[in-house]
Formats: sequence, structure tokens, C-alpha cells
Amino acid sequence: MSESKVPSVNLSPSDYVIIGGTGDLSLRKILPALFWRYLDGQITADYRIAAASRRDIAIDEFAAMLRPFCESAFADGTAGEDEWQGFLALVSIITLDVKGSEGGDKLAEFIAERADSGRPTIFYLAIAPSLFGDATRLLRDCGLVVPQARLVVEKPLGHDGESSRAINAELAEIFDESQIYRIDHYLGKETVQNLMALRFANVIFESQWNNNHFDHVQITVAETVGVDNRAGYYDAYGAIRDMVQNHLLQLVCLVAMEPPSYFNADQVRDEKLRVLRAIRPLSAEDISCGQYQEYMQELGNSSNTETFVAMKLAVDNWRWAGVPFYIRTGKKLARRASEIVITFKQRPHDIFQRNGGGDIDSPPNRLIIRLQPSEGLRLQLISKEPGPGGMRLFPSELNLSFGDTFETRLPDAYERLLMDTARGNQTLFMRRDEVFAAWDIIDPVLTLIAGKTPSLYRSGTMGPEDDLLVADGRAWIDPYDD
Amino acid sequence: MSESKVPSVNLSPSDYVIIGGTGDLSLRKILPALFWRYLDGQITADYRIAAASRRDIAIDEFAAMLRPFCESAFADGTAGEDEWQGFLALVSIITLDVKGSEGGDKLAEFIAERADSGRPTIFYLAIAPSLFGDATRLLRDCGLVVPQARLVVEKPLGHDGESSRAINAELAEIFDESQIYRIDHYLGKETVQNLMALRFANVIFESQWNNNHFDHVQITVAETVGVDNRAGYYDAYGAIRDMVQNHLLQLVCLVAMEPPSYFNADQVRDEKLRVLRAIRPLSAEDISCGQYQEYMQELGNSSNTETFVAMKLAVDNWRWAGVPFYIRTGKKLARRASEIVITFKQRPHDIFQRNGGGDIDSPPNRLIIRLQPSEGLRLQLISKEPGPGGMRLFPSELNLSFGDTFETRLPDAYERLLMDTARGNQTLFMRRDEVFAAWDIIDPVLTLIAGKTPSLYRSGTMGPEDDLLVADGRAWIDPYDD
Repeated sequence: MSESKVPSVNLSPSDYVIIGGTGDLSLRKILPALFWRYLDGQITADYRIAAASRRDIAIDEFAAMLRPFCESAFADGTAGEDEWQGFLALVSIITLDVKGSEGGDKLAEFIAERADSGRPTIFYLAIAPSLFGDATRLLRDCGLVVPQARLVVEKPLGHDGESSRAINAELAEIFDESQIYRIDHYLGKETVQNLMALRFANVIFESQWNNNHFDHVQITVAETVGVDNRAGYYDAYGAIRDMVQNHLLQLVCLVAMEPPSYFNADQVRDEKLRVLRAIRPLSAEDISCGQYQEYMQELGNSSNTETFVAMKLAVDNWRWAGVPFYIRTGKKLARRASEIVITFKQRPHDIFQRNGGGDIDSPPNRLIIRLQPSEGLRLQLISKEPGPGGMRLFPSELNLSFGDTFETRLPDAYERLLMDTARGNQTLFMRRDEVFAAWDIIDPVLTLIAGKTPSLYRSGTMGPEDDLLVADGRAWIDPYDD
Repeated sequence: MSESKVPSVNLSPSDYVIIGGTGDLSLRKILPALFWRYLDGQITADYRIAAASRRDIAIDEFAAMLRPFCESAFADGTAGEDEWQGFLALVSIITLDVKGSEGGDKLAEFIAERADSGRPTIFYLAIAPSLFGDATRLLRDCGLVVPQARLVVEKPLGHDGESSRAINAELAEIFDESQIYRIDHYLGKETVQNLMALRFANVIFESQWNNNHFDHVQITVAETVGVDNRAGYYDAYGAIRDMVQNHLLQLVCLVAMEPPSYFNADQVRDEKLRVLRAIRPLSAEDISCGQYQEYMQELGNSSNTETFVAMKLAVDNWRWAGVPFYIRTGKKLARRASEIVITFKQRPHDIFQRNGGGDIDSPPNRLIIRLQPSEGLRLQLISKEPGPGGMRLFPSELNLSFGDTFETRLPDAYERLLMDTARGNQTLFMRRDEVFAAWDIIDPVLTLIAGKTPSLYRSGTMGPEDDLLVADGRAWIDPYDD
């Protein structure tokens, strides 16, 4: 199974231009991801990578800054000095001030060197959204917004529907929607993609993927970290904007979407959009906010910002009527884990309750899709307890751990998404109308909770008590350690 | 999970009387099984075991004969000398000639010692069926056929419907059907019982267990051994009588049966009976017989006896209309394995065939229930091939190996069935009407193949070529090594 290491899909070489190339996102995520794709042979010697930033920095100094973030490749023996030098040979440093329009000529020159090849140019805006307008106008003014140019941006793209529309309108002035790649790194996770394979390549699941068979769906995205040194930034956002508007709603979409006719970017995104538009407006009783106990101390002032939120969503369509989607996310929780838990309806009749060792309390079937830390799939069944003691039932599991099964390193979400930009495949990127539809759900929620004090919760728990599920006779299913 | 070692169901102590107690079946299967139940604490010091046979043999000599068949318990450290002596203390030797009616008084005395307790007495007829009449009449004449008496018999119970009816009529003269336990050791296998738990305790399977979702079912019971020194016996039976009439048809019943209202002996057996009666009479083209190449040489004369048979069965009811059940069994095949393979219908539409790395040839979902050598369950799925190479599909499996998961030794089928006789639970034993219904299917098959020469096949293959499946556009799915 390890022959899958070098993908069989050949990509034409591309140029990556990281604007904000010496910044945190670039050093921590983008460049290490490109390095791994280089190590795996997918980024070849024909690719070029430009780190554009205001800093005038020599390649050696830059390499020394980057190296610590690439250590895992050296530690496991995948990379050596040759590979490192080979990768660095692809990297150019371009000094560029998007506000001052300084350095645009050097960037244009860099692109022009290979312009005749018509190769894709991928501009990654690893800068604050407030600079997007300046950056895109600079690219336009330098004549770089050609059909094969692509633009990659990342959250936060606004803090509500209005600001999001403003930022996206600014991008749309210069770039066509078909050129814009909005990264939600949750969509780049192996399991998220596998969820689509699971649903649409396996009749045994898709045939049950509806309100005849599902009791409810739970999505948990739990973090153990707090806000650390991001308290100032975080306090202006909170869990709903930071996590729900993008990651969690996207996961809801992937679970709830109708099968597209074909697995291509617009059909997939059309179906996700339909889900977002089918989500019923929330009431106050569908929302439970929490704040971990040390938060205000870390922030240094009082705050109503939620570091935890749980919501009950209804998807108003034929497929999902009556099947609640419970979602929650928070910081400083008991464990780091992202899971989608599908609970099937209980069996309609229990043939084992008489004469054979009754077991009416056995749990219903569950399908648990783990996104992190270890990506995998678990199907919870009821089996007979082994032994000659008669028919006693027993919960058991069918397991598929992607890490174990495939024995290859699973690429980081950024690696996948970066290669998709080279491939020109927008399937795993949020389209503008999806972003707006998500805000249309979230804006009224923000209004509902405005000024309300979130419940306190102890760090290391799974958040404050909420009665979203209790009221429905259900309970949260907490992720457990593998 | 290993707390399941000592079953929580307490049984009242019983007396086992093995008629033919020094014979092959007793030494190889029955007594080692009882020893294991003793080691696991289920057979306690209050139980008694009588080995009744014509041989006048001392307990020491008997112990020495038995010991080699119990070695596995000593080898893994479960048993030591103390346990062995403790077990032997439960065993009495009774000299008994069922034909001469000699020794009946000693047997009656043995039973009478504890008769006041009303404890169950289990008479296991480990003798040739031709002696069943003598043995049961002896038991009656000694006054031992009381309500708490139970009778255990084992195949071969006749070689066609007529002889089976004669043998069973002889048993019925003395014992009530509710006292008769016909052992089919396939029904005692952990996986066979688990198949019922799987179907009837898990909505995710039972909701798809019909002709809307199943394409077809295959059942393979493959042996690597030949007839060895049993050629004379075997030649009068052949694979159809030896394996299909009992084991394979029972497996068909367990896969095809409707859910009983309750899991009790008569409701389960009623439902199995309904399946047998729904099986459409076979035509010659539904049957393919084979004989392995060395068979006649081993036998010493020419023969048309089949050592391999494959059949296509139709179950004529609403649930299974259009879903063929292909079954096959044979000797000297490529590997020893018993498997039930359920192939689900292919997905109705392939969303991945355009724009995303098409994979229309990916196999359909399959559920593979392995009965031996390693009991387990495999669910074959399609997953996304890991990596950043786009959406490429890939066959993968969810696995439940009972041996691995539960980490306890799986009891032998005989152990389970013997304890069920003590428990008075007939669920896993064939009822008379089931046996007759199975012969009603098999008798016409025997007529159809009579005098026909089976196809030769090479030892170590999976049998002769047959076009049962090819004609339907399908292929046999061979078991593979784990």
C-alpha cells in the first residue's frame, strides 16, 4: 500500500508567491508543507517559491529561521542536507511592501522569467486582511492577475457577515471567484476527504444516511490549549467566530450534504451551500456558551467572550427532519480531539430480552469519524460476548485507523490544500456564497448572545454543563484516548 | 474484557453420561471440552461424568488415554496436575454393553445416587446410529428416561431422508423432541452465534439485510484434508450428505432467516425451518460436483462420490427474491477456511468518475464472516487513498477479529454445545423438522447427480471450474490467509 507515496497525478510546475513570506504562518505552515511535498517528490526542481516580505533578508538567514519548523522531516530521516539545499534552491526572497507598492517590479520580474510557460502562479496572502486590498491592487498594477494566477487567503476573513462581505468584495474587484482559494485547513484533513469517500463510494453507509436511520449527529472539536498569547486577538472573536462559522459548519455540511452528481468543486460546494441554507435559525435555547476559569485573568480584563460553545442545529430538509446536529467546540478542554459521532436509531425490537440473557440497555450503533489527533474510523457494534455462557451482548468495534492501515505518513492538511491550488482544484476551498451563508447563520447567533455572560467551566473538563442534549434525552459522547 | 472468563450464568450441576465413552469422539472432542469447561470454572466439583463403554478399563488407564487430547491446556499453563486430578475425580467408568443390556444396573445406580436432586442427566450417544435403538431402550428399561434426562446425538443421522426419518423415529419412541439435542458443531462456533447478534442487535446491518441491498451471498467451507483413512465411510456419503445437508444449509438458514420475535430455541428453529422450506428445488444446472485427483487411488476402486460440490440456491420469499446463495464445500482445497461473504449491490451512481480521478471499477462493499480458522468479521469498504494526490479510491477494511479483540481463549464449539445441554437450551441444536426439511432439499439433488461422473480437480486448488457464478456475471471470492 505504500506505493501511494508518489502520487500518480502529474502536476505542471507552479510558482508559489507567499506574500508575508517571513511571517509566522509562512514559516510555521506554508513553507514546511511545501518542503514535505518536495521531499515526497511532488514539488519538483521546476517549481519556484518566492517569499515576499518587507524584510530585506539573505537566503541563509531565512533558511536558519525556517529550519526549526522543518525539523520533523530531518528527525525521521526523510530529509538530509542535500534535500534541504535542493529545496532552498527553489526559494527566492523578494523584498516587497504592499502598502508602499515597493518591490512590485522585482516580483513582476520574477514572474516574467517564466511567464511564457503559462504556468500557474499562486499568490498566498499570508498577511492581515486589512492589507488584502493593497496586496491585490499591487498584483493587478504589476500585471500579474492573469488567468493562470490564483489567490490563496485564510481566516479570519472578517468578524461578521458585513466585514466578510467587505473583504471578499475587495478580493472580487481584482480576482475572479474561480481564482480565489479560501483555506479552511479542516477541509484538508485526510478524514474529511475520506468522509466523502465513505459516504459516496460505499452503499452500506449512504443507504442509511438519513432520518430513517440516524438518531442524531454530534460534532466535537475540543482543544486543550487556552488562548495563550493570543488573548487580545481571541477576545475580539471567540469560539463561534473562530471555530463554528468555518470549521464546524463545514463539517456539518459534509455530513449532511446530498450526493453531488459529480465530485467537482462547484457541485460539491453547491450541495454544501444547500445545507447551510437549510439550517434553521437558532433560538437562544439552542446555544450554550462557556468561558474557562482563568480566561479573564489571562486577558487582563473582564470579558463575555466565549471560549466554549455548544449548539443544537436543525437541518430543515427531507433527509434530516427530526435529526438534530449537536456541535461543540472549546479551549482548555479535557483532551484534544475532533470527532464526528453518528448515532443510529436503536433497534426497533429486542429479540434478546427474554430467555437468552436480556440486554435491552446495549448502546445503539455508532459511527465515529475521528479527525484528530489520530485520524480514523470506528464502527460501534453489538457482538455476542465470547464464551459458552449463552447469548450475552457486548459492545465491540470495527476499526480503521488510517495511520495504521496505510503505513505512510499522512500529509498535513496544508500540504494537500497547497497542492490543490497548484492543481487548480477548488473542491476543498470555501466558495464566497458559502462563507456568506455561514455568516447568515452566525450573525443572529452573535446577536442572541451579545452581552450575556457565558458559564464558567474548569480547565480540563469538557466544558460547562449544558442541557441541549439532556432536554432531548441524550448525552454528549466524549472522545476517549486511543 | 477478560472478566468474561467465568460466565455469570450459574448452571445447576449436571451428570454427563457418555455412551461410547472410550471411543474416538469421546476422547477427542467430548471429554477435552468438558475438561476445558472445568478449567474455566463452569463445570464445578458437583458435576459428574460417566464414561460408559463395553471396555472394562481402570481410571488410570483411561486417564492415560485421554491425556494426549488435553495437552493444549497443559501447554498453555491453564492446567496443572492438580486440575487434572480434580477433573478425573469427577469421572466414573461404567462398563456397559448396550446390545447385551449388560451394565444397565450400574448406570442406574450411578444416576440414582443423586436422583433426588432432580439434576439434569445428559446422555451423549457417542456410538454408531445403528446402536441408538438399543441404547435408548436400555435407558428406558433402566428407568432413566425421566423429564430431566436429555439425549445428545450427532451426525451422521442417516444418509437420506428415509433413513434419517427411521433413526429419528427410533429416538422419538423413547425421548420427547424437547429432550433431544442434535449436535451440528458448526452451530456451536462463536461466529455463528455472533452472526445472530450481528444481525439482530445491530440495526445498521439488519436494515440492509434484504434484496434491496444484497447482490448475492457466498458460503465456502473449504478443507485441505482429504478423506485419509475414512475413505470407506466417506465414499458412501460424499460432500453433499457430509457437509451440505447439515452445516452449509444451516449457515444458509442463519443468514437468510427472518428475525424471530424472541431468541429462544423454538422461535429460532421455526425461522430456520421457514428458510429451508423456501429454498427452491434445484435443477441439474444449479449443481457442480468434483472429485480430487487422488481420491479413487486412496479409495482403491472407482467411484462417482463427490469430494467437492458447489450449488446455487434460490430462497423464494420476499426478502431474498433475486439474491442467489452460492455455496461450496470440498476436500483437498487450497486452504482451510469457512467464510460467509455478503456482497452488497454496487453503488447506484459514481460521483467520482469525472474530474476527480475516476474509479468506477472499485469493488462493491462486502461483509465477510469468517468461521475458521480465525473467527472474525471484516467489512470491506472503499476509502480515499491517503495522500495529497486528489480523490483516489482504495479498498480498505474494518476488522473485528474475535480472537484479538476479546483476548480470551475462544471455547471450542463442543464446549458451548455441551454447556447448552446442561442449560437445557436447544437453540443451537437442529430440530427434527429442520433435519427432514434439509433432506427434502438434498434427496432430489442426490437423485439428480446419481450416476454422473464428477469433474476432477487438482488437490490444492479451489475445486473444479464451475459456471454457476460465471453464468450470472459473478465470481467466487476465495478466502485468503490472514
